[in-house]
Amino acid sequence: MATQGSGRQPKYQRIADELREAIQAGEYGPGDRLPGENDLMATYEVARMTARQALGVLQNEGLAESRKGAGVFVRAFKPLRRRGIQRLSRDQWGSGRSIWSADIEDRTLVVDQVQVYEAASPERISQVLGVEADAPVCVRSRRFVLDDKPVLLSTSYLPADLVAGSAITQEDTGPGGTYARLAELGYKPVHFREEIRSRMPSQEEASRLQLSMGTPVIMICRTAFADEGRPVEVNEMTLDSAAYVLEYDFDA
Amino acid sequence: MATQGSGRQPKYQRIADELREAIQAGEYGPGDRLPGENDLMATYEVARMTARQALGVLQNEGLAESRKGAGVFVRAFKPLRRRGIQRLSRDQWGSGRSIWSADIEDRTLVVDQVQVYEAASPERISQVLGVEADAPVCVRSRRFVLDDKPVLLSTSYLPADLVAGSAITQEDTGPGGTYARLAELGYKPVHFREEIRSRMPSQEEASRLQLSMGTPVIMICRTAFADEGRPVEVNEMTLDSAAYVLEYDFDA
Repeated sequence: MATQGSGRQPKYQRIADELREAIQAGEYGPGDRLPGENDLMATYEVARMTARQALGVLQNEGLAESRKGAGVFVRAFKPLRRRGIQRLSRDQWGSGRSIWSADIEDRTLVVDQVQVYEAASPERISQVLGVEADAPVCVRSRRFVLDDKPVLLSTSYLPADLVAGSAITQEDTGPGGTYARLAELGYKPVHFREEIRSRMPSQEEASRLQLSMGTPVIMICRTAFADEGRPVEVNEMTLDSAAYVLEYDFDA
Repeated sequence: MATQGSGRQPKYQRIADELREAIQAGEYGPGDRLPGENDLMATYEVARMTARQALGVLQNEGLAESRKGAGVFVRAFKPLRRRGIQRLSRDQWGSGRSIWSADIEDRTLVVDQVQVYEAASPERISQVLGVEADAPVCVRSRRFVLDDKPVLLSTSYLPADLVAGSAITQEDTGPGGTYARLAELGYKPVHFREEIRSRMPSQEEASRLQLSMGTPVIMICRTAFADEGRPVEVNEMTLDSAAYVLEYDFDA
């Protein structure tokens, strides 16, 4: 790993570039330990701070992560594959399976931090649901934890008058979940819109999702429509971007 | 804006929290200038470094951006809406308005940095296209610039033998572009798969997309399939996450 010495970039950037290239070329695979500060100091004849900055660049890019007392490692990306379209097809929730089952494969998904309550609709939700500003909505908030690592925050909003008295207002929505209950109420979801964004997390999101440094969140806003285009649910999801690949399959 | 003084958080975090809440409550709208370092020093009776750190937190979260010599401003999010599934008309479904309003129609999108060349297929591309490792592929790389701001990098890979002699190997692919030419060659794309991830940008990506601090990129890997599930193109896209909302509309 000889330095090229272009002289234009700071030294720590040149070291980071070489390490990045080595990662991308597969010399260091997912989960491998990168050279430590002492190694980099010896190899490149630089000060500890320079070595530390070089490793910091890779952590900020999300390519590597520090483990306390053990060093800096190439981040292993073993993502959940979230299939936006197949996942919501009726033969899943229609036959009583929760829509989230498709995500899990053989891994253990735990739901925690469940909160179900009625509240005044936030303005952005009112606009999508087509209800009055401040109209009462049923709010279902929860967190999904995979293999002890939180991966997704989810908050659903449904018009309160539409779901009043149903199991949707309970913690346990019963077999098939919210969508099966909506179908029983005569508002079967027949169409979905998913809108996707990405940004850096807030402090609260980083804490609830236990995010590593340099990890953005993916935001999905899913709207479920019943017949005649009536919006019946808005679900705002916040995903650990290091945990997910989203997939959409569709015909031309 | 009185401080609560919980005493547990660092001061700059408490200031950042208050500013964040004010942004989320709409007291500061998109494009508004936030209080400067001097304002924060006076209001909170803190040192300049503390004020600077507080503003830095919001920039790192992508909520605000610094403009040279002018101060720190609430980031305006006027995204492009990229509709993954265009055959489905949104009009028939949207009695509810979309959460992220967007206008794409009257803005000018320019393509630059076009490169078309033949190369050995990278391993990950070979796997998707189902060609031999190092098989020759036609590579089409370009950048999309909106209103003088680069927003998207795109690199397509097509099997070289499949597109040999066609306009796909030229800079100008002609009317209808690559997909029209593929159709003429007997490989009309009939199915698409899009895979989406998000991460922090590399230095090169941040430079080519002119990204502000705290801005992740969205990665889309789109595969086009012809009849019988034959993969004919892989397109790797890198998007400025501050410029895009992705939208997928589909039936249950």
